[in-house]
Amino acid sequence: MNRKLRMGMVGGGPDAFIGEVHRKAARMDGDIELIAGAFSSDAAKSRQAGATLCLDPARVYPSYARMIEEERRLGPDKRIDFVTIVTPNHLHFPIARDFLKAGFHVIVDKPMTLDAREAIELQTIVRETGLVLALTHNYTGYPMVKLARDIVRQDDLGKIRKIVVQYPQGWLSLPLEQEGVKQAQWRTDPKRQGPSGCIQDIGSHAENLAEYITGLQIKEVCADLTSFVEGRQLDDDGNCLVRFEGGAKGILFASQVSVAHENDLAIWVHGEKGSLEWHQENPNYLYEYRIDEPVRTWRRGNGCVAAKSPAAGKATRIPFGHPEGFIEAFANVYLNAAAAIRAHVERKEWDPAEHDYPTVDDGVRGMRFIEAAVESSRQGATWVSV
Amino acid sequence: MNRKLRMGMVGGGPDAFIGEVHRKAARMDGDIELIAGAFSSDAAKSRQAGATLCLDPARVYPSYARMIEEERRLGPDKRIDFVTIVTPNHLHFPIARDFLKAGFHVIVDKPMTLDAREAIELQTIVRETGLVLALTHNYTGYPMVKLARDIVRQDDLGKIRKIVVQYPQGWLSLPLEQEGVKQAQWRTDPKRQGPSGCIQDIGSHAENLAEYITGLQIKEVCADLTSFVEGRQLDDDGNCLVRFEGGAKGILFASQVSVAHENDLAIWVHGEKGSLEWHQENPNYLYEYRIDEPVRTWRRGNGCVAAKSPAAGKATRIPFGHPEGFIEAFANVYLNAAAAIRAHVERKEWDPAEHDYPTVDDGVRGMRFIEAAVESSRQGATWVSV
Amino acid sequence: MNRKLRMGMVGGGPDAFIGEVHRKAARMDGDIELIAGAFSSDAAKSRQAGATLCLDPARVYPSYARMIEEERRLGPDKRIDFVTIVTPNHLHFPIARDFLKAGFHVIVDKPMTLDAREAIELQTIVRETGLVLALTHNYTGYPMVKLARDIVRQDDLGKIRKIVVQYPQGWLSLPLEQEGVKQAQWRTDPKRQGPSGCIQDIGSHAENLAEYITGLQIKEVCADLTSFVEGRQLDDDGNCLVRFEGGAKGILFASQVSVAHENDLAIWVHGEKGSLEWHQENPNYLYEYRIDEPVRTWRRGNGCVAAKSPAAGKATRIPFGHPEGFIEAFANVYLNAAAAIRAHVERKEWDPAEHDYPTVDDGVRGMRFIEAAVESSRQGATWVSV
Amino acid sequence: MNRKLRMGMVGGGPDAFIGEVHRKAARMDGDIELIAGAFSSDAAKSRQAGATLCLDPARVYPSYARMIEEERRLGPDKRIDFVTIVTPNHLHFPIARDFLKAGFHVIVDKPMTLDAREAIELQTIVRETGLVLALTHNYTGYPMVKLARDIVRQDDLGKIRKIVVQYPQGWLSLPLEQEGVKQAQWRTDPKRQGPSGCIQDIGSHAENLAEYITGLQIKEVCADLTSFVEGRQLDDDGNCLVRFEGGAKGILFASQVSVAHENDLAIWVHGEKGSLEWHQENPNYLYEYRIDEPVRTWRRGNGCVAAKSPAAGKATRIPFGHPEGFIEAFANVYLNAAAAIRAHVERKEWDPAEHDYPTVDDGVRGMRFIEAAVESSRQGATWVSV
Repeated sequence: MNRKLRMGMVGGGPDAFIGEVHRKAARMDGDIELIAGAFSSDAAKSRQAGATLCLDPARVYPSYARMIEEERRLGPDKRIDFVTIVTPNHLHFPIARDFLKAGFHVIVDKPMTLDAREAIELQTIVRETGLVLALTHNYTGYPMVKLARDIVRQDDLGKIRKIVVQYPQGWLSLPLEQEGVKQAQWRTDPKRQGPSGCIQDIGSHAENLAEYITGLQIKEVCADLTSFVEGRQLDDDGNCLVRFEGGAKGILFASQVSVAHENDLAIWVHGEKGSLEWHQENPNYLYEYRIDEPVRTWRRGNGCVAAKSPAAGKATRIPFGHPEGFIEAFANVYLNAAAAIRAHVERKEWDPAEHDYPTVDDGVRGMRFIEAAVESSRQGATWVSV
Repeated sequence: MNRKLRMGMVGGGPDAFIGEVHRKAARMDGDIELIAGAFSSDAAKSRQAGATLCLDPARVYPSYARMIEEERRLGPDKRIDFVTIVTPNHLHFPIARDFLKAGFHVIVDKPMTLDAREAIELQTIVRETGLVLALTHNYTGYPMVKLARDIVRQDDLGKIRKIVVQYPQGWLSLPLEQEGVKQAQWRTDPKRQGPSGCIQDIGSHAENLAEYITGLQIKEVCADLTSFVEGRQLDDDGNCLVRFEGGAKGILFASQVSVAHENDLAIWVHGEKGSLEWHQENPNYLYEYRIDEPVRTWRRGNGCVAAKSPAAGKATRIPFGHPEGFIEAFANVYLNAAAAIRAHVERKEWDPAEHDYPTVDDGVRGMRFIEAAVESSRQGATWVSV
Repeated sequence: MNRKLRMGMVGGGPDAFIGEVHRKAARMDGDIELIAGAFSSDAAKSRQAGATLCLDPARVYPSYARMIEEERRLGPDKRIDFVTIVTPNHLHFPIARDFLKAGFHVIVDKPMTLDAREAIELQTIVRETGLVLALTHNYTGYPMVKLARDIVRQDDLGKIRKIVVQYPQGWLSLPLEQEGVKQAQWRTDPKRQGPSGCIQDIGSHAENLAEYITGLQIKEVCADLTSFVEGRQLDDDGNCLVRFEGGAKGILFASQVSVAHENDLAIWVHGEKGSLEWHQENPNYLYEYRIDEPVRTWRRGNGCVAAKSPAAGKATRIPFGHPEGFIEAFANVYLNAAAAIRAHVERKEWDPAEHDYPTVDDGVRGMRFIEAAVESSRQGATWVSV
Repeated sequence: MNRKLRMGMVGGGPDAFIGEVHRKAARMDGDIELIAGAFSSDAAKSRQAGATLCLDPARVYPSYARMIEEERRLGPDKRIDFVTIVTPNHLHFPIARDFLKAGFHVIVDKPMTLDAREAIELQTIVRETGLVLALTHNYTGYPMVKLARDIVRQDDLGKIRKIVVQYPQGWLSLPLEQEGVKQAQWRTDPKRQGPSGCIQDIGSHAENLAEYITGLQIKEVCADLTSFVEGRQLDDDGNCLVRFEGGAKGILFASQVSVAHENDLAIWVHGEKGSLEWHQENPNYLYEYRIDEPVRTWRRGNGCVAAKSPAAGKATRIPFGHPEGFIEAFANVYLNAAAAIRAHVERKEWDPAEHDYPTVDDGVRGMRFIEAAVESSRQGATWVSV
């Protein structure tokens, strides 16, 4: 490695949460360096964040527009290689669009955009520019999720029949947005959050996880979304029946009012010959069920895992029995996206089949699913095509 | 106790499975004695079963009709107090009807009847005769299920918002009915099983469990039922959205093709203030979640459980840490039904509120739910009232 | 089966706990009938117990001596086939001795006697009379314990290197014996309990479990026993290093002051090629670890379990996924002992290798282990031969 | 923050494992920058490592002696603030000594030294220089371990009676050192590893964890160490009885031949009023048992955890339900040691009571424990004072 990749960031200022997650993920493997940012739309806050991060003040900008302008002016040996966008949802689209058009690779937090229209426009730009856009659907970064995908790909389960995927949380059981909690305020505000609360924020993770592991797309959804907390504008709970291409059926549900549940994303995939089960809160294990055999618990970091799934092996940093967690999975999105960006930077051949990070296409899928679920629920829970 | 209750049985002959479960449950507490039976429609097989069970051959009958006739003729000091019906589903109704009309109390395996019409007819007969009819929805016999019910009743969770209940099995993943497995044959045959396979056989347990714990009735269902195994006539998988009276919503699913899953009946109940979780395969524990507190694991047999739920305390036979299982839960249906029957026999006052066993009303609820689910699925998964 | 086996009981009156456990175990399979008893040394209490159990008052005795006398007088078609002894520990020996000498088979609760001398005397009597003596070391009745034994026997683990076995409880964390709790009083009283509290009461279960599964005997022990609760005469906690024949080493510990622990008997067996793990509180599962493979969870009731271990298959009553518990394991001791007794009664050939219940030899082993541990601790925790 | 702390490293070259763990831990929070190193005693390998890490070649040294010499020469604005030592065990002492004497703070991997004599010498140097020496007993970095410590400190459990602590691994079940595995070779070689294999490598983690949580020191040990694998020079398994100051007793065992066990470090602490349980492989949970109450599962990241234990709150980076793992715990040692180093650098007041990282005193305790265990085992497992 000749040099570290140079990273910029938009958003992620003093009050934010996800920005620091991205920074930790980017730091993990020592091959990315944060050197520029527009951390807040408030210039003083942006400066403050830059100072805290020990950045050169000349590379800390009062706006993302200014950042694009100034960074472009710097020569290819100085300017950032890519930008990470960690603003509230409604700003993802314009910022990603403008950076891409200015020739920068992009890593953007999910949901990618506010609606499918924006998502498709971004897809077009990515295709035209050939640049990397990575979406931090971080849960697919877990090694055991990659192992699950590879077990399905190798047809060990036979034809997939049924998929159950869930994402229950409890943090919005109380009307936190009415109590001044900032994270709760923008996530329950249609203008900044988009057309859905729960299904958009976490249901889309469930959708992405199910499609990633099985390689099957949801083609129809029947969704019953509810706002249980009085006065809340967006859904805080959603129950969906889903039908996949090829005949598989399933259930997808998400909730922000499952009291005291944390991030209990979990999936069960049932084929003709076997089943898989995985839980995000205990992510180093994957359970495989086969007819009249002992249940198999695959454990991250063992040779047998890497032999079955080289992608799972590559996504593992620490030997078995020393648990890896959320940050490491998140860092795998960075690791794999960085490999693609580096291939561009170093003008190397790059096989898109090697891309093991969520792309703009996953973003489009996600927005379509969200829109279909919202539409279904509006009609009283009828079947709507995705 | 002056004497043991005298029990008869219809069904439960040499090849049957559930008959011996009922007998073990009846034996558990030493206050019931099996003394008569028509164990098979084949007289020789009935005699064989009677001999194995060390019964007086004079009390072993070639048919249930003959059994009714002969037992009635015996004086009140000799004849059976109640009959247990463990035949295939389609015979439950006529046998229960005839025994009730002849003045015998009845314990009947679920599903109670083949359809709602029969169920309602039985309900009428029970009301007219005043006799006991207990339905072995055995899962509500578990102490921790009773504790869950009492936690909800005492309003510890606040208003219920969401319920998720599941019953995945895997035993019908292969076309066993085409391979000569008898249990699989009648359970996939509409004539003997009824209008539904999976939802009737096990989905109805999920429905009963949810209604028992929450005290709320399902008022609408949107069901997507599937026969995944080629050539199978009845559904072997069912996914349902459900809406409860009072505004709670939920998911109910059951499956017989969840490969290598055993009897993974489980429920999650979410209220405004707290949540509960229970798993049939690990039934001695109940998990309670409350906002910003450690999760509480209630453990069967402790004083705090009996203090919170006298019914759970009463349903416990063995001290904590020595697991109780399926048979003990099943025996609790017998224990509680026997108390009601004994009250009749001894002509004692009996407060129906004390009835802690599934009744004919649960049977009617179950059949209505099954019919609504089947109807919904036939219409392509639309909402149907229960 | 021509007739049920006829059972008598000594002990197990109104205030007792373990007597009813034995009765439930005996009832489970419908081939044993309790018909006589001396339930208390108080004749009125004995009568009361007999009435509650619906026994013929003529078969309810004021003393075990009277019971032996009267039952002998009855012809072989009426008298009991065997007696179960469920008195406090110090009475086990004389009662078992006298029944054996009178020609009755015996089932006796553990510990078998108060000391090794008595145990050896009983062993001699059993050998001389050829009668059945079964000791209710009930934990070896669990199907998955039998599977574990058979995995070891089939040499799947290779040579055994290390064994860790534990039995922590918490019920004596408080000085219950000073608060009038009867169970606590006799179990902490050297006269009725024997030379040790914790190691005798539950440490001996751990010893029995380890030797049953591995087939190896403990040859040396270094024990550090403690009475943590002030004023308690016997140990309520014991930590032991152990050495097995053949070079395996291990740890055995038991405790009655592990606060709020219930009956957390568990074992880990490590061989050259694989390991096993089993927990009494979750007894339907056995975990098998092998080098660089997924962990295998064997689940009770599956065909693969019965194929690997016919004894485990035979010890299973209910299909997989419907948990069996403590009572069922206990009933397996009765089931297997009853088969041996029936062979005597029916004068059939009986292969002692078929005896899958704890015998007088296990009782002798247990008493020797207890004495060695007590001796070791008295010497300040030095090594003592068993 | 004005600037990042400047870190150097000795060891951690191309073939090493633990060096990259330290680097990841150091990078986690963005306030430490690796700028110099002597990564191997082979100068070419050291240069190669430096290049891979994008370091200035001028700061990559062929030996640690040269590194000390050159770094000292650099002004206080350029030279490293501290060095991390990640060589094989036998080099820890001389390198740590020389860096301390040259005025650099030190972070050193465990075990701190080869024996207690060296450890005490280091302790003297640290006391004389007043510099920071942090030892990466990383397991005490887990938030739930800090919570456990604080629950004990606040006397919620009452007087501690019993402690069970274990560290079973399986990676040395086979004779890997004879098969050319480098990690296995030096860890089974007395010259590079020290006087013990298993007890030194991982038993010392168990000792450190028990003393950290309970605040009690082990005063006596009775150890039975074994080399199970033929031809191995050092113990690969160790079973110990331990006695703590104040009367608590316990068990400590470690193993490298517990087949297919990974890093199953776990602890149970029993007091008069309550118990705690924690498992390294599932580290985000702490279990608390109290008499006749539901078991409490404390979950990392909740407000109630931080309220009970500010240290646990501070050691948490990601919200609840998004698991943190080994690297984050490791990074907490860096975070807390860096705070102490920064206080020196910035000449701020620093309360040693704030030091929440393992110090040279823990290193001395560890070496004394190891020596006592080895001595005990040599004498045939007798009691030896620590």
